[in-house]
Amino acid sequence: MKIVLLGSGNVATHLGKALKDSGHIILQIWSRTRGHAQALGQSLQCDFTSNLSHINEDGEIYIIAVSDDAIDEIASSFPLQNKILVHTSGTTDLDIPGISGVFYPLQTFSKQKDVDFSKIPIAIEGRNSEVTEQLNYLAKSVSSKVVLMNSEQRKALHIAAVFACNFSNHLYAIADKILSDNGLDFDLIKPLITETAEKVQFNSPVTVQTGPAVRRDEITLNKHLDFLKDMTAFKDLYEQLSQSIINFDQKA
Amino acid sequence: MKIVLLGSGNVATHLGKALKDSGHIILQIWSRTRGHAQALGQSLQCDFTSNLSHINEDGEIYIIAVSDDAIDEIASSFPLQNKILVHTSGTTDLDIPGISGVFYPLQTFSKQKDVDFSKIPIAIEGRNSEVTEQLNYLAKSVSSKVVLMNSEQRKALHIAAVFACNFSNHLYAIADKILSDNGLDFDLIKPLITETAEKVQFNSPVTVQTGPAVRRDEITLNKHLDFLKDMTAFKDLYEQLSQSIINFDQKA
Repeated sequence: MKIVLLGSGNVATHLGKALKDSGHIILQIWSRTRGHAQALGQSLQCDFTSNLSHINEDGEIYIIAVSDDAIDEIASSFPLQNKILVHTSGTTDLDIPGISGVFYPLQTFSKQKDVDFSKIPIAIEGRNSEVTEQLNYLAKSVSSKVVLMNSEQRKALHIAAVFACNFSNHLYAIADKILSDNGLDFDLIKPLITETAEKVQFNSPVTVQTGPAVRRDEITLNKHLDFLKDMTAFKDLYEQLSQSIINFDQKA
Repeated sequence: MKIVLLGSGNVATHLGKALKDSGHIILQIWSRTRGHAQALGQSLQCDFTSNLSHINEDGEIYIIAVSDDAIDEIASSFPLQNKILVHTSGTTDLDIPGISGVFYPLQTFSKQKDVDFSKIPIAIEGRNSEVTEQLNYLAKSVSSKVVLMNSEQRKALHIAAVFACNFSNHLYAIADKILSDNGLDFDLIKPLITETAEKVQFNSPVTVQTGPAVRRDEITLNKHLDFLKDMTAFKDLYEQLSQSIINFDQKA
C-alpha cells in the first residue's frame, strides 16, 4: 500500500521501518518540526514535509503517529477528503472528526532498541467494513497477531499494558535504587526479572505469585517495612502492593 | 561435599537437585512432615527422616531450607556440635544461635517450572573465614554468580527482588484481570512483558521508562483513572505508581 506517515517519534520510526520492510511504499513523512520530518524521511528514503497543505495526495492510507493530545488538531486540519486517516493511540477513541480508523501496535518502543514487529499485537478498528478490511490487510502484512476491537477494549488493553509494562519497569527502577544504595549491582536481579517474565508466558500470573505477601509472612513483611522506614515513598508502595496481593488472592 | 538438607519445599527441592547434579552427595533429607521427607528423599535417592535426633552425623554441611519463622526452632534443636549449619533466607540475619552461615539463592522457585541453577546468584555469608570458604566452594559448584555480602545487604537484595519480581508478577495479574473483564486475552500483552524484562538486561530501568506518567501525559492519565473508577483498588495503585514514576524521575 502507499502510505503517508504523520509523526516522527518512536512509533512513527519503528512502524515506518516495519511497513517499508514488508514491501509497502512510504510516500512521505509529515512532522510539525521540519528537521524531524527530514531525518525520518532520509532514514526511510522518502519525501518529507512540515506543511500539512503539502501532504501527498496519492496515499491509500494516512497514519497519524503523534502524542495523543495532538491527534485532534491534525485530524481537523487534514486537507484531503475521502482518505483513510487513522491514529495509533491506545486510549484515544475512534470517534474523532476526520478519523476513519485506528491502528494500535501494542509495544514499548524506544530509540535504543530494535523490535521484531511480527510479534507485536496490533489492535484495529474501522468506521466501516471497508476501512476495517484495509487496516486488517495492512496490519497482517507486518504482524502475525491482529485483533479487531472496539475503543473501550483498546483502552483496557492500553491500561493493562501500563500495569504490566510501565509500572513493572518502574519497580525495576526502585529495585535498582535499593541495590545501589546498599553497594549492590543491579545485575544480581536480572536473572530473576527474566524468570518472572518467562513464567507468565505459560502460567496464569495469579497461580505463580510468590513472596512474603501471598504467604501472609508477617515477620518478613514487617522486617522489610522496617528496613524501608527512611524511604517513605518505597515503604508506602511496598505496603500497598503487598495489601493488593493479599486482597487479590482472597478474591481469586 | 556431603550434605544434609533440612526442608522439603521449593527451595530444598530445586537446591537438592542442583547440588546432586553438580556431584555432591545428599546424605539425607529431614522434614517435620515424614511424607514430605520421604517424597524428596526418594526423588533425590537418599535417606530421609522426620526426627531431628536421627540426623546423619557425617554431613560436612547442613542446609536449612524452610520458611523463615521455622529457622530459629530448627537451629536451636539441632543436635550436632561443630557442624556447619546454614540457612537459605534472604531476610533472616546470620546472627541466630546455632547458625554458622547463610547460603541464599536469589530466585523465584515454583513447583511448576525447572530452573537453570548456574545462572542463579547466590549470596553467602559465614561466621568465620573457614565457613565462608566452604560456602564459597559449594556455591561456586552450582552457580557462576556467587557474592559475599552481609546480612543488611542480603535483606536489601531480598527487598529489591520483592519489588522487581513479586510485585511485577502481581501487576501482570492485575493486567490479566483488566483484560479478561473486557473480553481480551492475556496472550496479547505477553510480548510486551518479555520486551520490558529484556530491555533492562542492557539498560538502566530509569532510562527506558515509558508510558503516560513519565511523559506527564495528564490527558491519558485522567482517561485511565476514569476507566478504572469502579475498580477502586486498581485505580489507587494506578495513581500511586504513576505519582511514584513522576517523583522518581524528578529525583533522578
